[in-house]
Amino acid sequence: MPELRKDPTIGKWVIIATERSSRPSDFKEEPEELTKMDTCPFCEGREDKTPPEILAIRPPGLPPNSKGWQVRVIPNKFPALTIEGELGRRGIGVYDFMNGIGAHEVIVETPDHSEEIENIPVERLENILWVYKERYLDLRKDPRLKYILIFKNKGKKAGASLEHTHSQLIATPVVPDIVKNELETGLRYYQYKERCLYCDIILQELEENKRVVFENVDFMAFVPFAAAVPFEIQILPKEHSSDFAEMKLSEIKSLSETLKISLKMLTKAVPNVSYNFYIHTSSLDNLAVPYYHWHIEIVPRLTQLAGFEWGSGLYINPVPPESAAEFLINAKKEMEP
Amino acid sequence: MPELRKDPTIGKWVIIATERSSRPSDFKEEPEELTKMDTCPFCEGREDKTPPEILAIRPPGLPPNSKGWQVRVIPNKFPALTIEGELGRRGIGVYDFMNGIGAHEVIVETPDHSEEIENIPVERLENILWVYKERYLDLRKDPRLKYILIFKNKGKKAGASLEHTHSQLIATPVVPDIVKNELETGLRYYQYKERCLYCDIILQELEENKRVVFENVDFMAFVPFAAAVPFEIQILPKEHSSDFAEMKLSEIKSLSETLKISLKMLTKAVPNVSYNFYIHTSSLDNLAVPYYHWHIEIVPRLTQLAGFEWGSGLYINPVPPESAAEFLINAKKEMEP
Repeated sequence: MPELRKDPTIGKWVIIATERSSRPSDFKEEPEELTKMDTCPFCEGREDKTPPEILAIRPPGLPPNSKGWQVRVIPNKFPALTIEGELGRRGIGVYDFMNGIGAHEVIVETPDHSEEIENIPVERLENILWVYKERYLDLRKDPRLKYILIFKNKGKKAGASLEHTHSQLIATPVVPDIVKNELETGLRYYQYKERCLYCDIILQELEENKRVVFENVDFMAFVPFAAAVPFEIQILPKEHSSDFAEMKLSEIKSLSETLKISLKMLTKAVPNVSYNFYIHTSSLDNLAVPYYHWHIEIVPRLTQLAGFEWGSGLYINPVPPESAAEFLINAKKEMEP
Repeated sequence: MPELRKDPTIGKWVIIATERSSRPSDFKEEPEELTKMDTCPFCEGREDKTPPEILAIRPPGLPPNSKGWQVRVIPNKFPALTIEGELGRRGIGVYDFMNGIGAHEVIVETPDHSEEIENIPVERLENILWVYKERYLDLRKDPRLKYILIFKNKGKKAGASLEHTHSQLIATPVVPDIVKNELETGLRYYQYKERCLYCDIILQELEENKRVVFENVDFMAFVPFAAAVPFEIQILPKEHSSDFAEMKLSEIKSLSETLKISLKMLTKAVPNVSYNFYIHTSSLDNLAVPYYHWHIEIVPRLTQLAGFEWGSGLYINPVPPESAAEFLINAKKEMEP
C-alpha cells in the first residue's frame, strides 16, 4: 500500500509509492554533449564577453576581468530583477504589486568548460562556498532586500541554459513563499516545543539511521523522511544556526566535503542526473532565530510534474526515502576514496 | 523594469517580465506524433484491456465494457492511492504518516484515439463535465476522503503518458496543500471584508477588462493578474459557489462552451502547447462556504522550472497577463465561428 508522509518542515503531504518502487536504473538519463565550448562567455579568456566582474578569486597582482581566476562572479546579463530603483509598493483593488527590485548574479564555478561541479576538488569547492558567503554578506546590506536565494541548475531538465557549470544568486524584495512557509512552520513548532524542529530532526535521523547518507563533524546529509522527489538529499549543519553566513572557515571546509560527497554519490547512483540545489536560510529582516535552521536541498529532476502535482501540491515519489538512502550509500561505497 | 505581483488567492508573489517579454511565436512547440493507435487500451473495441468500467455514457441497451460509448470511466491500473483499507494515521517522533487510501480513476473523453479535447463538440464536452460531477458526487460519500482533484494532462511536457485524450481523478484523505492555502487565504479575506475574494476579483476583472478573454451568462475566463506561467487561463462561475457539484445542467452547458473556447484559443495562440487543467473546489468536510469559489485553472507548460522556482516558489512569467490576454483574444478572432 502506498504511504502518505508529512514533511514536518512545511506541513505538506507526499505520496510515497512503496510497492512497485523504482530503482536508480529505471531512470535512464542521457548524457548531455558539450557543444558551446567555442563561444561560451564563462570560459577563461572570454572575460570581456560578460558584464564586468563583481568578485573573483585569482592570484594577487592580476587585473580584474582577465585570465587566471578560479571562481568569478558577474551580474546576470538578463536579470530577473534589477538593482536600480525604488520598491514602489502599491495596490489597485484586490491586487498588489511592486517594482522588480533585486539582484541577479552568476557565480562561474570554474574557468574550465568541461569540468563538472562534483569533480571540482574539495579545496576549490571551498572557494565557491566562500564566494557564496561573501556575495550574501555584501548584498544583505541593501535594506530593500528581504531574501537572497543561492541556487544551481545542473542539466537541461533542471533548467540550465548554459553548459559551463555555474550557480546563481537572486536577491528579492519579498521573502519567497517556500521559505516563508518553512519559517512559519518552524516558529509554530518552536512555540509548542520550545525546541528547533530541525535540531529534533537531526537527533531523530541520527538515532534511526535509516536515511542518513553522510556525516562529518559539522554536517549531516540525509534523504528527507517525506522527500518529494527520488534521491532528494538535504544537508543540515549539526549545530543550530539559522543564518548561513554565520558559517566559520572550518565549517566551510566540512560543508565542502559534505556537498561534494552528496553530489558525487547522487551522480554515481543515477548517471547523468539533472538536479538543482539551493540554500535555504533565514530572511534578512530576522537573521538569527532559534526556530529555523539553514540547510541545502539537492533536488534531482527525474520525475515529471503533471496536473495532479500542479493542482494539488501533492507529489508522488516513486522511490521510498529509505531505499534512496540505501542506493546512495551503495553508490558511495563504489566511489574511489 | 520587471514587476512583482501578488496572487491574491494564495498570497504568492510572481515576477512578471515586462521588458523583453515573450510572444506566442517564441514558444516553438513540436507536434507529438500518435504512435500507439494499434495498442491503445482507451480505444473503442479494446474495452477488455482496462479494468472494468465504473461509469460510461453509451446508448441504452448496450452492455457495459462493450463498444458504443462516448465517455468511459475506469479505475487507474496503476493507482497512486488505493481504495481498500484503513487510514491508520500515526506518528514517530517528529514524523507523521498514514496509509495511502484514496481513489484514482481515468475518464476517457472520447472513443477516438486521434480526437483532441479542444475539438470535441460542445454537446459532447457537456457529457464529460457531467461525468466529472457524477464521479465527484459518488466518491464524496466516502468519509475517509477529504478532497477530490479532477485534472487533465495534455502532451508529454504536461506529464501525459498515454496519447488518447483523457482526464483523471484522484481522491485523497488529506486536503492538498495548494487548495488548503486557497481556502485559508479566502477565509482571511472574508473575515476582513465579509465578501468572497473571488467575487471581488470577478467584479474588478470585468470592470478593468484587460485580462478577460471570454464570458457568457454563467462563466468568466481570464488571465489571472499574477499568472505564474504564460497564457494561464482561469475559469470562474460568475455567481458565488464554492462547490463544483452544485452546478446545474444549464451551467454545465455554459461551462462546456467556456472550456472549449478557452482551450481552443490557447492551442490556436500557441500551437502544439502542452497543458494541464484541474478543478479547484471546496474540501469535502466543508462544501458550501461563503469564502471560497470553485474554479478551473488551465496551466500551459511552456516554461521550465529551475532551481530558483523550485527553491523559492517564486515564478518568472515572461508574458505579462495583459499581453497574454490580447494574444488569446486575437487568436479567438481568427478561429472559425
